[in-house]
Amino acid sequence: MSLIVALDPPEGVDGVKWCINLIERIDGVPKGFKVGLPLVVKEGIKGLREVVSVMNNELVIADLKLADIGYVMSLITKTVANAGVNTVIAHAFVGIEGALSELSHVCSELGIKLVLVTFMSHPGAVRVMKKVFSNLLDIAKEINAWGVVLPATMPNIVKVGRECLGPSFKILAPGVGAQGAAPGDALCAGADYEIVGRLITRAENPLKVTLEVVKKQEERVRACRGL
Amino acid sequence: MSLIVALDPPEGVDGVKWCINLIERIDGVPKGFKVGLPLVVKEGIKGLREVVSVMNNELVIADLKLADIGYVMSLITKTVANAGVNTVIAHAFVGIEGALSELSHVCSELGIKLVLVTFMSHPGAVRVMKKVFSNLLDIAKEINAWGVVLPATMPNIVKVGRECLGPSFKILAPGVGAQGAAPGDALCAGADYEIVGRLITRAENPLKVTLEVVKKQEERVRACRGL
Repeated sequence: MSLIVALDPPEGVDGVKWCINLIERIDGVPKGFKVGLPLVVKEGIKGLREVVSVMNNELVIADLKLADIGYVMSLITKTVANAGVNTVIAHAFVGIEGALSELSHVCSELGIKLVLVTFMSHPGAVRVMKKVFSNLLDIAKEINAWGVVLPATMPNIVKVGRECLGPSFKILAPGVGAQGAAPGDALCAGADYEIVGRLITRAENPLKVTLEVVKKQEERVRACRGL
Repeated sequence: MSLIVALDPPEGVDGVKWCINLIERIDGVPKGFKVGLPLVVKEGIKGLREVVSVMNNELVIADLKLADIGYVMSLITKTVANAGVNTVIAHAFVGIEGALSELSHVCSELGIKLVLVTFMSHPGAVRVMKKVFSNLLDIAKEINAWGVVLPATMPNIVKVGRECLGPSFKILAPGVGAQGAAPGDALCAGADYEIVGRLITRAENPLKVTLEVVKKQEERVRACRGL
């Protein structure tokens, strides 16, 4: 149970209906769902609430990649919490004082899990993020975030993150499937959850593919742990 | 005409009505308006469209501080462009390949001005952003952004930005008023626009305060240029 499914509706569809249809087809299998900013911008909080209302999962994640001052990030977090979200993703990059300290405080009060992006997988991100990667991990530790995002496509980065953070932080790893990582790669490198999007959501039979991904994760983890 | 007004509705009000009321009271005076993510998350694209429809300004800015991969930022930009926005703000931090190159391309196609955050003013941002400030300015130059965001509260940073970027980039400087910078400070340091929020939007008579801010900007600029 280390699978999170990213719900990013394609252009030109009714995003709310599309998400609800997918959730109903695979619900019960993934540990959680992640909804992104495109859906929220298009449908507003009303649409988000509709989508979230059909989820029966432990993790209901708003991946808005918040990167603003504390006041603004807190306002948005209160709004999505009110719609039923229990986890938000923000950028470690914006720092603590005047930004993540305030957000972290609001998250504690609301019982929201805070996850920080500490590395991204697209080629352009590496240029800047590599220089400040250890700072970003330090920020996650200092505010005692619930978890961090590290790319499944870069297992070495996941390993460094796990070594630096220790066992108590959750590591969420996107990039499995369409972006190239195989199910289980990031788990073997130290991640707690792998995030899969298009591989499942664009499949003709999403339930079948979801079950296959879970099976592959389990096989790969058994193999890398020598079980 | 170097004033942009940031419309950030307080909690507990009808954000769309609040924005429309303010726009109607001061429209014609500011060069543009900036709408943030809290409003968009709450009201969705429908609410944004309503707000934008009453603006008669040169700059209609969606300050979503986009910080994601190119595909996601492009999707969101298409959505807000469709609502009448003509300028979007993204983070330089996410880099070019796989991120801003794609966004920049979409912006050109849609006739959208792209503005990049290259520094933020809250204390926590300084820790990380100072280390990569020159990289972030280089990124703005390389993708030929329309403009950058630099804090009015740090005139020295605005000066460095102007020297590095040359005269063809626009500099937008938030932080005037409630955050401590005086009207005209950033203009004297090299900015093209100053962004004012609460000082105007929370005033009893927003039009009066708007006109005062413009007058102070003009006086300050005349003084620092020795006119």
